[in-house]
Amino acid sequence: MRLSALLPLLALVTAAPPPAAKSPGEIVAAAPASAWRAVDPDNLLLMELANGGHVAIELAPAFAPAHVANIRALVHGRWFDGNAVVRVQDDYVVQWGGADEKKPLPAGVSAHLPAEYERPREGLAIRPLGFRDAYAVLVGHADGWPVASDGKSAWLPHCYGMVGVGRDMPPDTGTGAELYTVIGQAPRHLDRNITVVGRIVDGMEALTALPRGTGDLGFYTDPAQRLAITRARIASDVPEAERPRYQVMRSDAPAFASYVDARANRRDAFFVKPAGAVDLCNAPVPTRRAP
Amino acid sequence: MRLSALLPLLALVTAAPPPAAKSPGEIVAAAPASAWRAVDPDNLLLMELANGGHVAIELAPAFAPAHVANIRALVHGRWFDGNAVVRVQDDYVVQWGGADEKKPLPAGVSAHLPAEYERPREGLAIRPLGFRDAYAVLVGHADGWPVASDGKSAWLPHCYGMVGVGRDMPPDTGTGAELYTVIGQAPRHLDRNITVVGRIVDGMEALTALPRGTGDLGFYTDPAQRLAITRARIASDVPEAERPRYQVMRSDAPAFASYVDARANRRDAFFVKPAGAVDLCNAPVPTRRAP
Repeated sequence: MRLSALLPLLALVTAAPPPAAKSPGEIVAAAPASAWRAVDPDNLLLMELANGGHVAIELAPAFAPAHVANIRALVHGRWFDGNAVVRVQDDYVVQWGGADEKKPLPAGVSAHLPAEYERPREGLAIRPLGFRDAYAVLVGHADGWPVASDGKSAWLPHCYGMVGVGRDMPPDTGTGAELYTVIGQAPRHLDRNITVVGRIVDGMEALTALPRGTGDLGFYTDPAQRLAITRARIASDVPEAERPRYQVMRSDAPAFASYVDARANRRDAFFVKPAGAVDLCNAPVPTRRAP
Repeated sequence: MRLSALLPLLALVTAAPPPAAKSPGEIVAAAPASAWRAVDPDNLLLMELANGGHVAIELAPAFAPAHVANIRALVHGRWFDGNAVVRVQDDYVVQWGGADEKKPLPAGVSAHLPAEYERPREGLAIRPLGFRDAYAVLVGHADGWPVASDGKSAWLPHCYGMVGVGRDMPPDTGTGAELYTVIGQAPRHLDRNITVVGRIVDGMEALTALPRGTGDLGFYTDPAQRLAITRARIASDVPEAERPRYQVMRSDAPAFASYVDARANRRDAFFVKPAGAVDLCNAPVPTRRAP
């Protein structure tokens, strides 16, 4: 073989190595303003906790309109003010709002709502994740939300930080008066068995680091162990000057595609073997305070 | 149609409903003694924490023999005694053992070990989970451990409570002197990028409820925030009378098959729509104190 035939190959081999690939975090930090959408203040539930924590929850009326409306009415009726976190079950959920079973629901709050476990897929522009999922034939993202689908209907999956509606045995007994968030491995078996109403966009640490309850299902056995909710408000009721503003990465933005690709294929310096895939709940949608 | 032709159908319809299906927890509680294997005290790392927590870790020499041997030597050299939890990153890991970078490794401890990211699949009797996985073509369980495989090699996946070996950039820099456990959604992108050496079988709550670190990667910024490790021992060094004993459900036991089926198909009273599948890390292998 003549030497010249080898040259192109040699050129490739001896070229400078490609620059280190960006980590998912670096991709998020470099994303342009156009990659973000604002969280609508009408859909932003703000909870202040007695431990100093501030929890911000984006509600999802596109998936659970009746429950989101009920939660707004509960907040306006001061249901959560003086209520408490009553349950912390390790690798499962933190639950709040049910501290006093005798407290009547505020006026305008429905005691029975239809289950909103799924909605039509039609009308959602789902960006497919592109990787296998144990639970659903299609998973991906729509309008900055993780979504699972059987092709016909769609639902919000129980990923870390998602917020759902506690209920009793009958499916129509969830009102939003008791809410929970996922603090462990995604309990996807709850998908389509409970109404999911949103996700925590800030302040998760104020809930996840709480002592685990020692009662059945992680309920606190002594009311003194409960963490009081000082106040809950819908952001649009907060004066503009003091209103916190949040953003969610748009799932139709090129930066989001880069982010998901980097979550699936870590090529930044630490990694020696990119996975080549990512689980829906292991690619959490980036959120941030508005800059 | 003659009435008699309908009778068999009517008999089915009017028969008493089947008894309520058992929950996964009820299946585990009812499993016979033969469904459990003991945790070998030579593979049981016991850690006492300054917050009163007792953490028990089963080590996995079948997957990381050199690292497990090194961890035993670290414990015998009292590496962990007086060391601390230094990092708590929400939805990711709790890490301990690296409180003092200048502390020399005890005698008999290797400073460089080969990476033990995977092992041959051959020799493992893997019970396939039977459901899709985003990361591996085959997932299941072997000898009571969750396992992922590409068909040729096999590895311990980063599920909740699994314990891995912190390392610097070069793959041979993990010694076992710094360990971490997963406290959130399974970061399976770490699979085959870090040596996994075991899993927590008891005391997880003593680590998961810790305040999250506010430094980069969740490191505590003030050494006063660290949680001291009072003492670490290998159970076989503990006098028999005071030695805690743990058991792991055998993954080849019929009760384990029932448990996995119930995790995939919740038919107990609360559930209206069984998922029909389960993710590897959402079917944690049951563990318990020996009765």
